[in-house]
Amino acid sequence: MRQGWRWFGPEAPVTLDDVRQTGATNIVSSLHQVPIGRAWTEKEVRERQSLIETTPADRSSLVWSVVESIPIPDAVKRRGGEAKAEIEAWIASLEAVAACGIPIVCYNFMPVVDWTRTELDYVTPTGATAMRFDHERFAAFDLFILERPDAARDYSDADRERARIIFEAMSEDEIAEITRIITSALPGSTTEPLTIPAFREKLVAYSGIDAAKLRRHLIEFLEAVTPAAEARGVKLTLHPDDPPRSLFGLPRIASTADDYAALFDAVPSKANGMCYCTGSLGVRADNDLPAIARRFASRIYFAHLRATTREGDGRTFHESAHLEGDVDMVAVLRELVAEDRRRGDQDTIVFRSDHGHRMLDDLDKTVTPGYPAIGRMRGLAELRGILHALGAPPS
Amino acid sequence: MRQGWRWFGPEAPVTLDDVRQTGATNIVSSLHQVPIGRAWTEKEVRERQSLIETTPADRSSLVWSVVESIPIPDAVKRRGGEAKAEIEAWIASLEAVAACGIPIVCYNFMPVVDWTRTELDYVTPTGATAMRFDHERFAAFDLFILERPDAARDYSDADRERARIIFEAMSEDEIAEITRIITSALPGSTTEPLTIPAFREKLVAYSGIDAAKLRRHLIEFLEAVTPAAEARGVKLTLHPDDPPRSLFGLPRIASTADDYAALFDAVPSKANGMCYCTGSLGVRADNDLPAIARRFASRIYFAHLRATTREGDGRTFHESAHLEGDVDMVAVLRELVAEDRRRGDQDTIVFRSDHGHRMLDDLDKTVTPGYPAIGRMRGLAELRGILHALGAPPS
Repeated sequence: MRQGWRWFGPEAPVTLDDVRQTGATNIVSSLHQVPIGRAWTEKEVRERQSLIETTPADRSSLVWSVVESIPIPDAVKRRGGEAKAEIEAWIASLEAVAACGIPIVCYNFMPVVDWTRTELDYVTPTGATAMRFDHERFAAFDLFILERPDAARDYSDADRERARIIFEAMSEDEIAEITRIITSALPGSTTEPLTIPAFREKLVAYSGIDAAKLRRHLIEFLEAVTPAAEARGVKLTLHPDDPPRSLFGLPRIASTADDYAALFDAVPSKANGMCYCTGSLGVRADNDLPAIARRFASRIYFAHLRATTREGDGRTFHESAHLEGDVDMVAVLRELVAEDRRRGDQDTIVFRSDHGHRMLDDLDKTVTPGYPAIGRMRGLAELRGILHALGAPPS
Repeated sequence: MRQGWRWFGPEAPVTLDDVRQTGATNIVSSLHQVPIGRAWTEKEVRERQSLIETTPADRSSLVWSVVESIPIPDAVKRRGGEAKAEIEAWIASLEAVAACGIPIVCYNFMPVVDWTRTELDYVTPTGATAMRFDHERFAAFDLFILERPDAARDYSDADRERARIIFEAMSEDEIAEITRIITSALPGSTTEPLTIPAFREKLVAYSGIDAAKLRRHLIEFLEAVTPAAEARGVKLTLHPDDPPRSLFGLPRIASTADDYAALFDAVPSKANGMCYCTGSLGVRADNDLPAIARRFASRIYFAHLRATTREGDGRTFHESAHLEGDVDMVAVLRELVAEDRRRGDQDTIVFRSDHGHRMLDDLDKTVTPGYPAIGRMRGLAELRGILHALGAPPS
C-alpha cells in the first residue's frame, strides 16, 4: 500500500515540507481553487503537479497519485439542463489529469450537501478534540433553523420534541455556529456553501428525485465517463456518503454494499472503482467493513482509513482515534493487504489516514477542520504500524 | 503492554495534558530536581505522584508506574569511600518509591558519562531531525579537545588521521558545540555535567577500574539493593549502555546479552531486572534483539523502543524513525507480547516510544533534546499499531 496524505494546496496551513516529515509519500489533492464545473486544463494540473513533485535537495520525494476530487456539479446529479455540458467539462478535467499521469480520481455523488457534522471540536477524554454528528442537534437544525417543509415526517414524535428542547436552549451564537458548520461546505466538499434560502431552493430542485432516480443519474454519468477513464488508464473511485444515510430527506445511494454492487453491475468497466472509506461506511452498524473490502477488493484503488464511535442508538457518532471506535482496522487492513498481494507491485492501493483528532500544537492554531497535521500523522503512524506487523510495510 | 511516556516534570515543555493527548497512559519520570545522591523522601515522591495522578474532570487518567531513574552516584560505581553511605541513600529513595506503590525503577551503571551523541539535529531526508553519533567527530573530541591521555591507543592510525582533519576543520563554534553536547549530560542523564578539567579528573579516578572490577561493583550494589526491592515488590531494571561499547577508555558492562547473563547469574533475585532498550542494544550488529528479548523475557519489566541505523563500518549511527533502521520492531514486540501473555493481566511490560525525530511544530521551538512531543508520539502510534495487529492492544 502507498501512504497518501491529503494536501489542500499552497495556501493550506499544512505544507508539503510538513507532509514529507510525516512519512507520507503520495499526495492526494485537487485544484481546489477552480470553481466547481469549470474544466481543468492540462497546464493547470501540470503546474500543481510540478509544485508537489519538485523535491528540495536531499529531501525525500512526493508524488501526486490521487485527485480528490473532481467535483460533480449539481446539474449532473439532478440531470438538469446543463448536465450534458457539465459531464463534458468533467471528462475534460479527467483528460487533463490523465495527461499528467495521475492514475486515480475520487468523486462522490451526494446531493446538496457533502460530508456533514454538527460539531467540529468535541472534547474527548484525552483532551484532543474530534468532529461529531449529533442526531438531535442535526434534527434541531433541520426542523427549526432550516425549517425544511416535510421535515417533520422524517422524525418520530420523541425526536421532534427532543430537537425542540435543544433548539429552544440554543443561544443566538449556537444557532449561528451550527448553521455555519452544516451549510458552509466542510473542507474538501464538492458542494457549494449555502445560505438558508439557497439551501431551501436546492431542496426544492430535488423534489421528485428519489434513490432510484439518483442512482440512474449516477449510472448515466458513469456510462459517459468510464470509457474516457478506461482509455487513459485512470481509475475512478466513488466515495461513500458521509454519513451513509439520507439527510434532509435527500436520497443517498453510496451508503451500503448493495449500493456499490448495483453500480458495479450496471457499469462493469474496471475504471468504475471504489474509494473505500471506513469512516463513512463504518457509521452504519450493518456495514460489515472487512466483508465489504473482501467483496469489492479488486475495485478498491483508494482507501480512507479512520474510525468512528456510534453513540446511543447509533444515529449520533463521533470520530475516534484511528484504532479506537467501531472499526476493526486490523481486519480491514488484512483484506486490503491481501488484495495488494494479488496485484503484485503494480497499482497498490493508495491509503490515507483520514481526518484526525486536533491535538498538541494544532489546538492552538487555525487548522483545516478534520485535517490537522498532528492527529492525522498519529493516525498514519498507527496504520503504518499495523502494516509492518502484517508483513506489508507501506511504500 | 502498558503505554508509557517519559515526562521530565512540571517545568518541562511537554505537559501532562500533552501526554494524555498522545494516548499514553503510564508516566515514566524521576525527581529530576533532587541532586544525585541525596535520598528521596516519601513526601517528595508522593507530591510528584499526586501531580501526575490527579486527573482534571472528564479527562483520562495517568499513573506513575516507572521511576527513570534513581541515579547511582559515581562513588558507588568506583566503590569510592562514600559508596556505602550512597547505597544506603539509594535504598532510602527506593523505599520512598515503594511506599508510594510505584512498581518499577530504572537505573544504569555507565561511568562518567551517560548516553552520548555528537549531533542533536542531524537532518534526515524527510526534513525531520535526529540525534546522531559520529565516530570520527567523537574521536576528534576525545583526541584533540578533551586531549585524553592514552586516547591514541584506542584508535587506529587511520582513525587518528581522519579525526585530526575533522578537528582542524572545526570552527570555534563547532568545537564549543560538540563539547557542550558531549559534556553537558543529555536529558535524563544520571551523571553530572562536566567541564573539560573535571572530565579529565573523573577519568583519572577510574584508572585501574576495568570491566571485571566495574562488574563486581555492580554486583555488590545489586546484592545490597535487591533484598530491599524484593521485600517491597519493586522491580529494578538496568538500562543498557548507550552506545553499547567503551567510550573514553572506560569500561561498560551492560552492552551485550552476556553482560546481562553474568548479572542475573550472580544476583538471581527476581527484583534484578532489565530495561530492554532496543535503541541502545541495537547499535551493535552482534546484538540479536529478538533473541535477547526471548532469553531474558521474564526479567524484562520495562522497555525503551526505538531504532537506530548504523552507518559505514557501524561505529557511526543515527536514530531512525521507529519502524526504520536496523531494529526489527515487529519481531521484538512479538517476543514482548509473548512474555506478557505468559504473565496474564498482572505486571505487563511498560514500554515507551523512546526518543523521536524533531518534526513539525517541534522544529520551531525549544524542545528537550531527544524528547520532542510530536516525533515521540509518532513513534508511540507506530508501536501501538503493531500491538493492535499482534492482537495485543496496549493498555
